[in-house]
Amino acid sequence: MAVYTEISDEDLAVFLEGYELGGLLSCKGIAEGVENSNYLLHCEAGFFILTLYERRVVEADLPFFLGLMEHLARRGVNCPLPVHNRRGAALGRLAGRPAVIVTFLDGMSVRRPGVQHCAQIGEVLAQLHGAGSDFEIKRPNALSVAGWAPLFQAAEARADGVLPGLAVMIADELAHLEQAWPRSLPSGVIHADLFPDNAFFLGARLSGVIDFYFACNDALAYDLAICLNAWCFEPDLSFNITKGMAMIDGYQKVRPLSDAEKQALPLLARGAALRFLLTRLVDWLNVPDGALVRPKDPLEYVKKLRFHQQVQSVRDYGLLK
Amino acid sequence: MAVYTEISDEDLAVFLEGYELGGLLSCKGIAEGVENSNYLLHCEAGFFILTLYERRVVEADLPFFLGLMEHLARRGVNCPLPVHNRRGAALGRLAGRPAVIVTFLDGMSVRRPGVQHCAQIGEVLAQLHGAGSDFEIKRPNALSVAGWAPLFQAAEARADGVLPGLAVMIADELAHLEQAWPRSLPSGVIHADLFPDNAFFLGARLSGVIDFYFACNDALAYDLAICLNAWCFEPDLSFNITKGMAMIDGYQKVRPLSDAEKQALPLLARGAALRFLLTRLVDWLNVPDGALVRPKDPLEYVKKLRFHQQVQSVRDYGLLK
Repeated sequence: MAVYTEISDEDLAVFLEGYELGGLLSCKGIAEGVENSNYLLHCEAGFFILTLYERRVVEADLPFFLGLMEHLARRGVNCPLPVHNRRGAALGRLAGRPAVIVTFLDGMSVRRPGVQHCAQIGEVLAQLHGAGSDFEIKRPNALSVAGWAPLFQAAEARADGVLPGLAVMIADELAHLEQAWPRSLPSGVIHADLFPDNAFFLGARLSGVIDFYFACNDALAYDLAICLNAWCFEPDLSFNITKGMAMIDGYQKVRPLSDAEKQALPLLARGAALRFLLTRLVDWLNVPDGALVRPKDPLEYVKKLRFHQQVQSVRDYGLLK
Repeated sequence: MAVYTEISDEDLAVFLEGYELGGLLSCKGIAEGVENSNYLLHCEAGFFILTLYERRVVEADLPFFLGLMEHLARRGVNCPLPVHNRRGAALGRLAGRPAVIVTFLDGMSVRRPGVQHCAQIGEVLAQLHGAGSDFEIKRPNALSVAGWAPLFQAAEARADGVLPGLAVMIADELAHLEQAWPRSLPSGVIHADLFPDNAFFLGARLSGVIDFYFACNDALAYDLAICLNAWCFEPDLSFNITKGMAMIDGYQKVRPLSDAEKQALPLLARGAALRFLLTRLVDWLNVPDGALVRPKDPLEYVKKLRFHQQVQSVRDYGLLK
């Protein structure tokens, strides 16, 4: 949940005069995303989402994110489409922040994903990788292996206060991954944050993917590793191999993995677990006074990382051949 | 902002099967109200608001609140209309809580009300008092003068920690109001919480009134006194007599005040200020750990109370004759 910025009626009215959406009928803060402020707009032209970008989003990255959504939508990926204003721009300014209006996407995120959800996530992820292959803007992944050491330094001194022994565990894992990380896998545009919160379903059918604000260029199979972490563990944090199998099969229906990618998957899964462990740990240790957002538990990713550390081969994720 | 209860997809699907609203297309938590959890539902039949009642609302009061909304809506007051389920009931149960679906009302609350807003609030308040006059269910006002002493007792010991001298100030005011409170003014159904958050405007025009969960039977002029407190002070907490005049005039266009009501208005305004001072003080002193809601500042109502204490007559609120 997150609504950070209060918008004055006057500012909103002036902002909307720049668009061809007709009169404003309603604007409600919605509990979606944790990085930005989101509002549901009802205009004469229909329902839309207004997003105000808060401090975590670097303004220079917005042309990448917004351009990517347009690029993917045009190639048939169901995702929010940025609405252009009268000057032809997707990006505007409101209440002192970069702001964008995107189309409203029906569907709901699932709180307890099943096998069929995982299968569809694998499939749409591969579609997204295909559709993004000719997107021209590049954005390096600041949260890949080179970005983990600085995060760890920010959290190291207080890590054992969260879990005794955590600092050593992370240091060892980081040393291993920095040495063994695969650097020549097929790469392209990845979503990099396709968690259950960011996928919408209508009934059992996937209806769309949202929140492209971590998207970047990186190994495509790393995106799959992130999704295995995000979707295929049970609430007790045991790995569900049936879900893993369904996700990998779904992915390979659209884009078969190379042998190098299959072999790298356990290592990529460890890296993905460490990445979310580190960002959650930093957030956990740095909750601002009066924060309205409860940080996510970093220990969830300690347990996931431990699972991946004892994986023998990609077969442990459900890949049969 | 408040979304307290997480609803599982399965529970929501089962709940909605009880209604004739078609398939569910979207459900988003919205930042509206501070007492209950609210969700914007998109169903095949349109957009609706789903409310789950949290601990503060007494379940036995819900037939009063929901019946009142239906009663007022049928008499032309623009307010949310509870949707009946297939069994003909407005009230259901979801995620272990009483739950209701109401129609979606366009419009936005104003953050900085102007004179014209105040005039329309006066008018709609009088319309609401008229439309409620033949509503059959009764609900005494638990937050009227008899309810203030228990609130004060809950806060007295720590009141001076909020503002030195506050405990004595409240004790004196309470003693005065308990002795002088008018008990025979015209009474009926009052909204009792018609703050700017609870009134919607489309452009400059009032489009609806929401949040009837403090509605009760009490002196009608007390409702006007609450609105004078809520709408007619500037951000620096000076009273704007032009707004006061517009509100009282708007009210009297529909329902002229009796001489007794006019004479009582300064005292009623003191009572209204003390009522919100006390509930805010109690909330301020009892923020639960990890609360997602920032309590409202009680000192705002200390300053408003001080203004009313030095008022000489109803003319100081803008009433000319």
